[in-house]
Amino acid sequence: MASSTEEGWAPPAVLIDRNGKVMGAINHRQPNNWGRWGELDELGTVNFITPERIVAAASLIRTGKVVSCAIPLDPSGPVYPGRANVFHAFTYTGTDYAAGAPIRDQLGHYHGTDDVLFMPLQGSTQWDGLAHAGSHDMLYNGFWIGNVDAHSGARRCSIHQLRDRLQGRGVLLDLAARTQAGRLLPGHAITSAELDACASDQGVEVRSGDILLVRTGHVPHFYALEDKSSFWTSGAPGLSIETVEWIYRKEIGALAMDNIAIEVEPFEQPCEHPFPLHGRLIRDLGLTLGEIWWLDRLADACREEGRWEFFLSAPPLNVTNAVGSPINPIAIF
Amino acid sequence: MASSTEEGWAPPAVLIDRNGKVMGAINHRQPNNWGRWGELDELGTVNFITPERIVAAASLIRTGKVVSCAIPLDPSGPVYPGRANVFHAFTYTGTDYAAGAPIRDQLGHYHGTDDVLFMPLQGSTQWDGLAHAGSHDMLYNGFWIGNVDAHSGARRCSIHQLRDRLQGRGVLLDLAARTQAGRLLPGHAITSAELDACASDQGVEVRSGDILLVRTGHVPHFYALEDKSSFWTSGAPGLSIETVEWIYRKEIGALAMDNIAIEVEPFEQPCEHPFPLHGRLIRDLGLTLGEIWWLDRLADACREEGRWEFFLSAPPLNVTNAVGSPINPIAIF
Amino acid sequence: MASSTEEGWAPPAVLIDRNGKVMGAINHRQPNNWGRWGELDELGTVNFITPERIVAAASLIRTGKVVSCAIPLDPSGPVYPGRANVFHAFTYTGTDYAAGAPIRDQLGHYHGTDDVLFMPLQGSTQWDGLAHAGSHDMLYNGFWIGNVDAHSGARRCSIHQLRDRLQGRGVLLDLAARTQAGRLLPGHAITSAELDACASDQGVEVRSGDILLVRTGHVPHFYALEDKSSFWTSGAPGLSIETVEWIYRKEIGALAMDNIAIEVEPFEQPCEHPFPLHGRLIRDLGLTLGEIWWLDRLADACREEGRWEFFLSAPPLNVTNAVGSPINPIAIF
Amino acid sequence: MASSTEEGWAPPAVLIDRNGKVMGAINHRQPNNWGRWGELDELGTVNFITPERIVAAASLIRTGKVVSCAIPLDPSGPVYPGRANVFHAFTYTGTDYAAGAPIRDQLGHYHGTDDVLFMPLQGSTQWDGLAHAGSHDMLYNGFWIGNVDAHSGARRCSIHQLRDRLQGRGVLLDLAARTQAGRLLPGHAITSAELDACASDQGVEVRSGDILLVRTGHVPHFYALEDKSSFWTSGAPGLSIETVEWIYRKEIGALAMDNIAIEVEPFEQPCEHPFPLHGRLIRDLGLTLGEIWWLDRLADACREEGRWEFFLSAPPLNVTNAVGSPINPIAIF
Repeated sequence: MASSTEEGWAPPAVLIDRNGKVMGAINHRQPNNWGRWGELDELGTVNFITPERIVAAASLIRTGKVVSCAIPLDPSGPVYPGRANVFHAFTYTGTDYAAGAPIRDQLGHYHGTDDVLFMPLQGSTQWDGLAHAGSHDMLYNGFWIGNVDAHSGARRCSIHQLRDRLQGRGVLLDLAARTQAGRLLPGHAITSAELDACASDQGVEVRSGDILLVRTGHVPHFYALEDKSSFWTSGAPGLSIETVEWIYRKEIGALAMDNIAIEVEPFEQPCEHPFPLHGRLIRDLGLTLGEIWWLDRLADACREEGRWEFFLSAPPLNVTNAVGSPINPIAIF
Repeated sequence: MASSTEEGWAPPAVLIDRNGKVMGAINHRQPNNWGRWGELDELGTVNFITPERIVAAASLIRTGKVVSCAIPLDPSGPVYPGRANVFHAFTYTGTDYAAGAPIRDQLGHYHGTDDVLFMPLQGSTQWDGLAHAGSHDMLYNGFWIGNVDAHSGARRCSIHQLRDRLQGRGVLLDLAARTQAGRLLPGHAITSAELDACASDQGVEVRSGDILLVRTGHVPHFYALEDKSSFWTSGAPGLSIETVEWIYRKEIGALAMDNIAIEVEPFEQPCEHPFPLHGRLIRDLGLTLGEIWWLDRLADACREEGRWEFFLSAPPLNVTNAVGSPINPIAIF
Repeated sequence: MASSTEEGWAPPAVLIDRNGKVMGAINHRQPNNWGRWGELDELGTVNFITPERIVAAASLIRTGKVVSCAIPLDPSGPVYPGRANVFHAFTYTGTDYAAGAPIRDQLGHYHGTDDVLFMPLQGSTQWDGLAHAGSHDMLYNGFWIGNVDAHSGARRCSIHQLRDRLQGRGVLLDLAARTQAGRLLPGHAITSAELDACASDQGVEVRSGDILLVRTGHVPHFYALEDKSSFWTSGAPGLSIETVEWIYRKEIGALAMDNIAIEVEPFEQPCEHPFPLHGRLIRDLGLTLGEIWWLDRLADACREEGRWEFFLSAPPLNVTNAVGSPINPIAIF
Repeated sequence: MASSTEEGWAPPAVLIDRNGKVMGAINHRQPNNWGRWGELDELGTVNFITPERIVAAASLIRTGKVVSCAIPLDPSGPVYPGRANVFHAFTYTGTDYAAGAPIRDQLGHYHGTDDVLFMPLQGSTQWDGLAHAGSHDMLYNGFWIGNVDAHSGARRCSIHQLRDRLQGRGVLLDLAARTQAGRLLPGHAITSAELDACASDQGVEVRSGDILLVRTGHVPHFYALEDKSSFWTSGAPGLSIETVEWIYRKEIGALAMDNIAIEVEPFEQPCEHPFPLHGRLIRDLGLTLGEIWWLDRLADACREEGRWEFFLSAPPLNVTNAVGSPINPIAIF
């Protein structure tokens, strides 16, 4: 720990081994998956999604209906305060050609157009990778937080290590549909009993290696709000800290929701630190978290198809040493 | 057309209907798919990828092996001259916490990290959408080029319209494996006879609605080059203009390659304009093109699996009114 | 003009000469400076700032006090809704070295740090160049609006053409100091009578070629607001349309204020178009406008020095074909 | 120092005082200015530029000729390998209006245009601030390198602290004019004897508080090169390590050149670390360094005016906690 005395202040002393792990690190919090897939595992719970389970999930593709779970990737979306806005611009346009700009004469009758994107990797429908959240100087599996640096990025637990992952059985638990308001209200802490009841009523079983989707209606609420200024200070529905044990026991492969940060806000008290579920799920369990998903069209499709399971393909972009990635998650029935 | 006289110059005169189409437009080039899926279709050949074909493709998922076809999304990749570099940076890092920066005290023991990405949408493994290329003032299906403007982006034929698409049967034709050099050389114009021979030798049939992948070895060649300065001026292997008819007849749903621009460079002469295949494939056929894919791992997997067909999931990001998208294309066996 | 009929719609027909001007264009609005400095002039009223006047202004440097008129260039500033935020990030940091990131070993004991900036050129203390605002298809001096394209930028009237300009005599009219609130209230339309009275009371004469600064207290008000959500919808103090004639007659070289858009908001009615002063000042007079300046420290300095004139150095960045530029305007006493 | 043993590795241990300084730090290198302007000074040699000297410099403004010393701020400039390119784009254009894009109807007859800039702060004509370079874990005056973090930026020695500075007497030493080639060749290590001889021949005296400009012709050489691929590996002309003592003795206020990194490349051997002059000048002396200036027009003006001294205004942008800034340095005669 950092020490601050009258004489001065020193950065936290720590001893790192050759693999980037904090020497002698033990995770006293339970449950955790540290060491479960080896001392050097950087993938976490996606290890539950085995080839066999992928094959089994493929059998859910029966009608060929495809549903994207991405919000529009543009400046209209809910970006956490303090992050930059999504920015999309064109380096040459069709109007340039139409108005006879010099580019019109450069390639004969050919007209190409080009665009650029600037965005926070956490600023739209996305995965939070395992390097996105740690506590007490450590990431998942005891890797030192100092492995994430400005120059090299996340040298451990990067999102690009999941580039072949995050395909499998998806299950939607539509909690929003069980409310009168059509959405869970800010401050609603979802319990494992609610998850179990929803699954039971929907007639779907949550299994090891599933990519679990939980619909709250909170992101749609953002879009519906005319004045969004209070959205960020009003709290959010999300998972209770109590669900960590349930998620661990169910051996969830990855978890995604249509809220901003998975967990209920304000955070349940007492909590060991802000974003307590980020700590418990990402760092302790090694669970990749999907945020700001759009689950309304998926819920409609589930109702139409009469089932709450489907094949899900949601690979991250292969961004080298990144801690997150925008995605277009695809459910296939 | 634009007129330039002694007296002055005028932007090209054009009459646009309420749907954004050039009035009275007829595409005299053959083959083309204008009108094939309706006068207002903005999707093109992905229409060949029907739900039935998606279901059929799912039966190819038998071993659960998953292979990403994306290059590393970072500044090391081959970005066309004139485009910006890929830029990835962190807004707060693990080293900030490790060195006791002020953020260390903001969230107790919690340590979050965040990053941003700036990139040309055409600057890595990607899809070129139908608004990326036109000619003679028109995009696919006769939509006016002026529909792509700086303020609103691509109001027609945007990549986000494909957010539920580009799932289906993938077929790899490994032309590179048939060469002594292990790669096709710059200037090699791939013919339909070569495609047919490769398919025949591999024992795979190219069918309507397939997402066809053609391996040239050219992107790997970029990475292998120590001095990359001549890469962009030395030409590239790619499809001959002669394959347009073959692609049309085969009813390819989408086409992707491991070169930079699909087509052979230098362009075959005579050509009606630079990037002649972009004009013929994107604008005339409505074919979505995948460029800068990484097909080496996929070729290895095909050999191991003993088959050249697989399920392919390659949805674009849901970037509103964009003309292209970075992707992480996933092949599943 | 654009024509829209039952049969279709056509972009505005226009005939452009070889210099990029609309053929036969006449500016019927008065006053205007079109043609005043030649048919091809792209500089406008900075032409009033002659070398002789620069030399005369230098005699105002008597105590060596230097005052920056720039707000902090960071995300805390008032950026017009719809524009991107200012974004500043580091590509390698001191904390990287302190935490022993790989860069620590790359250059021996040397530790370099580097940063990047992304910003709207209109997103902080800035100049609006003459290509930033036009009307009726024309910029200043009759140049066609189509000269500003995505691929090449502003081919006429670019800010970089002013790279040797905007040095001279600065005069501050401190209207805010004359109010009880310490600031002009939103909706306050500053008249030429108020400007004259302020100058007279301050004992300063406004002369040809001056860079005139008008202090309203509105930008400081932005920073003082705890809840800024209503700032953008509440209007702003600014110049009345009536001052255009005064500005013309005074032969102001450039004009800058500590509000967001120079002109009073809501716009005075009736107005020929939104942002009526932008049209009248930038397009008709060729006046370069400075917005979002920080004039509080300057006002303090003026009071201390007992004079309201000073040498002003406020060159734009030399951004090729840009329509504006962030600046750090410097007053020297 | 960092320690690496068989047992593990630890980040460098360091004790920091409440002001961000390394406790007990002594700079054993000579010469240095640590403590010269107080233990907490973050400005360095710009302290030499006193108000009196600014007033004296103003007397050099005699003809009103103004000369920008900035290269074009666009992608054509020499950006150090590894840094991002300069990127300039428009969010709405004149061609959008000309082609009747939807924005045309939003503001009546008014046509605004807007642009954005993305750039490395070290990627064009610029100042390197005092937080840009350190060594042995310390910046100028003993501030800890860890004060520069990704989240907060440079909490010490930031460029924005110089927002009221860098006005004063400029002196140009035109070494390039003394060569046959019209430029100093790569590897040419400029000595203090050469600087003295040049000043003497030009009849100009270098005085305390001057902003010294040294012309090498190296940046113009970059632009003249058709194939720029070897520019970055061929070395550069620049100052010899031997000039540090001369710069110290002359009490230079700031130093700028028309090369990329001030110092001769390859670095003179033996050197204590790469970029030895960055360490000696920025860190030890507290000297702000200007790089990639364009001095050809200034040299022409000096010859025309018959003098090598002028008023120089070169304030940085007021970028909060940045380590550098793009600038448009202005010489006034």
